[in-house]
Amino acid sequence: METGLNTLGAAEIARRIRAREITAEAVMEDCVARIAAREPEIRAFVQFDADRALAAAREADRNAPAGPLHGVPFAIKDIIDTADFATGWGSPIYAGHLPPRDASCVELFRRAGAVPVGKTVTTEFAYFQPGVTANPHNLDHTPGGSSSGSAASVADGMVPLAFGSQTAASLIRPAAYCGVLGYKASHGTFDLQGVMGLAPSLDTLGLLARAVEDLILARAVLCGSPAERKSDFDDTPPRIALMRGPHWQDGTIEMRDVCQRALDRFAAHGADVGELTHPDIFNGLTDDHATVMAFEAARARIFEYSRHGDRLSPQFRDLVEAGLAVSRDDYLSALADRSRAVRLLEALFLDVDVILAPAAPGEAPGGLDATGDPLFSRAWTLLQVPCLSIPAGAGPNGLPLSVQAVGRFGDDDRLLAAADWMHRQLADF
Amino acid sequence: METGLNTLGAAEIARRIRAREITAEAVMEDCVARIAAREPEIRAFVQFDADRALAAAREADRNAPAGPLHGVPFAIKDIIDTADFATGWGSPIYAGHLPPRDASCVELFRRAGAVPVGKTVTTEFAYFQPGVTANPHNLDHTPGGSSSGSAASVADGMVPLAFGSQTAASLIRPAAYCGVLGYKASHGTFDLQGVMGLAPSLDTLGLLARAVEDLILARAVLCGSPAERKSDFDDTPPRIALMRGPHWQDGTIEMRDVCQRALDRFAAHGADVGELTHPDIFNGLTDDHATVMAFEAARARIFEYSRHGDRLSPQFRDLVEAGLAVSRDDYLSALADRSRAVRLLEALFLDVDVILAPAAPGEAPGGLDATGDPLFSRAWTLLQVPCLSIPAGAGPNGLPLSVQAVGRFGDDDRLLAAADWMHRQLADF
Repeated sequence: METGLNTLGAAEIARRIRAREITAEAVMEDCVARIAAREPEIRAFVQFDADRALAAAREADRNAPAGPLHGVPFAIKDIIDTADFATGWGSPIYAGHLPPRDASCVELFRRAGAVPVGKTVTTEFAYFQPGVTANPHNLDHTPGGSSSGSAASVADGMVPLAFGSQTAASLIRPAAYCGVLGYKASHGTFDLQGVMGLAPSLDTLGLLARAVEDLILARAVLCGSPAERKSDFDDTPPRIALMRGPHWQDGTIEMRDVCQRALDRFAAHGADVGELTHPDIFNGLTDDHATVMAFEAARARIFEYSRHGDRLSPQFRDLVEAGLAVSRDDYLSALADRSRAVRLLEALFLDVDVILAPAAPGEAPGGLDATGDPLFSRAWTLLQVPCLSIPAGAGPNGLPLSVQAVGRFGDDDRLLAAADWMHRQLADF
Repeated sequence: METGLNTLGAAEIARRIRAREITAEAVMEDCVARIAAREPEIRAFVQFDADRALAAAREADRNAPAGPLHGVPFAIKDIIDTADFATGWGSPIYAGHLPPRDASCVELFRRAGAVPVGKTVTTEFAYFQPGVTANPHNLDHTPGGSSSGSAASVADGMVPLAFGSQTAASLIRPAAYCGVLGYKASHGTFDLQGVMGLAPSLDTLGLLARAVEDLILARAVLCGSPAERKSDFDDTPPRIALMRGPHWQDGTIEMRDVCQRALDRFAAHGADVGELTHPDIFNGLTDDHATVMAFEAARARIFEYSRHGDRLSPQFRDLVEAGLAVSRDDYLSALADRSRAVRLLEALFLDVDVILAPAAPGEAPGGLDATGDPLFSRAWTLLQVPCLSIPAGAGPNGLPLSVQAVGRFGDDDRLLAAADWMHRQLADF
């Protein structure tokens, strides 16, 4: 990676612009140069216009800093509406469609002074059918999905910050495969107006970045939480418990190894660590997630299924048909499991700040014809808790490995503060 | 009201069409005639095209019955996307905008064979600034809002069934003022893809109709619940408790009287009735609702506020500004009140099937410059429970009065069954 301004984090960029050490234009120039150099191979963007991005950055420089993200470039997953970039949802049905408005998250970023760079590749309707993006660490490997372009663009230094979303594993997995931070908020925290829905009780907006402070800053902009970095854990490191979970043996040996070594590292730096056995009901949550997702997706995307069925991928059609075949009783039974598991999980969080878990089965798989297995995120997404993917070194193929930090529902501030501490301990992992 | 086919309920229409006693075209002809006669005064529709509606009905007649709503005309509140009717959200900003798709609820209705008639008047962004619709019972009085046109069109016999939505009192109040059934589902039950959002943790899709069986049928289509009318209460009438609530004295004397007389009527027909004192925390829920609504609306509609502020009504601008001024701590405190109240309410529903409450302060107020007070719905909407407005005679001005039936969260089937029983007891009220 070059060492230009494109490698800085969002908070750092905003600080330096505010201090008049650098300009938004200079930052954008380095981002644009990086994109020009790398995009032909990585293909992170469905839409990118260097001239427009530069003009917007110059405009930011002409104005007094409007907010905490003034002059910060950001990228937008293409299931998120924008009034000045077409929004295609990763489907030929909507290719070239120009919405009449920006999604709330985009407008909140703009009001805070951030500068949109372009729209990033998503899988079809944020489900499984992959886009064209390659993993920046190895172009023959998937970047993960569905937030493929957002993860790849942040990982490659094209932008410091990007919007993604998760309904199964769509933030945590691409973040893990690309070696960046991926943050899925507590369900319902960030407004979803203008964000395509796939399964409403699971859909969650999130962010990809390279510094935890960037996530904290972006979160503050989106939901009015305090933007100061919490120092809770600088004096007393967090209490961290590894939960292997029901799929532990389905991951690679290096995944299991990285979780264990990360835990040891945290302990060595003073964290109170331990292990938690997953409650029995967790054994069924992955299937429950699939049931809920199919049932809800069948309704959320019924228009496309009914009217444009011939332009859907076979696997998306299968999802809708599976969902239409799920009985309401089975759906409600899956939701009831969720309610029970949520109560058990609440109790576990009385004694720990963070649950440590695998972020993905291992390194990014080879090939661009699939985005990897969502196995290690389905349950957490169902439980609506905040999750972070934190890079933790590389595997035998030289591709990133990551761990997942899971927090208590609604306590994202605490999770982010703990993740900041954890990220620092893993910096040279 | 004429005694044509336009006065039949949705389930009755579907049954008779299926039995080949009537045609979809004949039904639509009577609806169209009613609209032609009355629309110039009532102004329920922002878009209505008689030729298209008739053509769609004839098309339905050419096909074998596709589903349980085959041939049933329905109207659509204009915050709900349709690919073949412009969708304006009650705002000049979006007047004439044609979305690229139907909302899920519309497509689910179409798949069930229902025939869209047109788009109905909503207040601006489903908030308070009224549209042009008049109350069919007295043109000088408001129909209530925000689902103004949907309630008026059903009340006037223009259509048997219409979509509405509620974030504060937008279904229950217009239903009460217009003397029809209004059903707000448990929050999250009906998919909201393509339905404009105002405050996501409150926004709920719902229906207006003249027969409870129509609501049961429509609900089955939307969420895959069983469509058979539940007979639970035919042998053993429901347990019904009146909860006067903290605003009892803020309503009119006739509202208080109608609640009491309805309770007596239910008792006379064998229901196990009683009274429940509202828990103390309910005293603050109306304010909590206003806090949550403002905080969330400020984010959900930030684009319109930022980019089109000059085309918003002053009261909508005030809402957004109030929401931006709410601290996150105050918002979270209101949500915490909600959680506590939800638990208390769950306990109350152990002993009753239905809580009976005022639906509105009284008859529809005079004038079309406001849609009435949401006082008697804010708390129930905050608590996300299913609610029904059930007509209960008329007040001193000859305008409808109604009571509100509130059910346990997620137990909409039981509430609808109980409401069916209650509606029958109040038929000659």
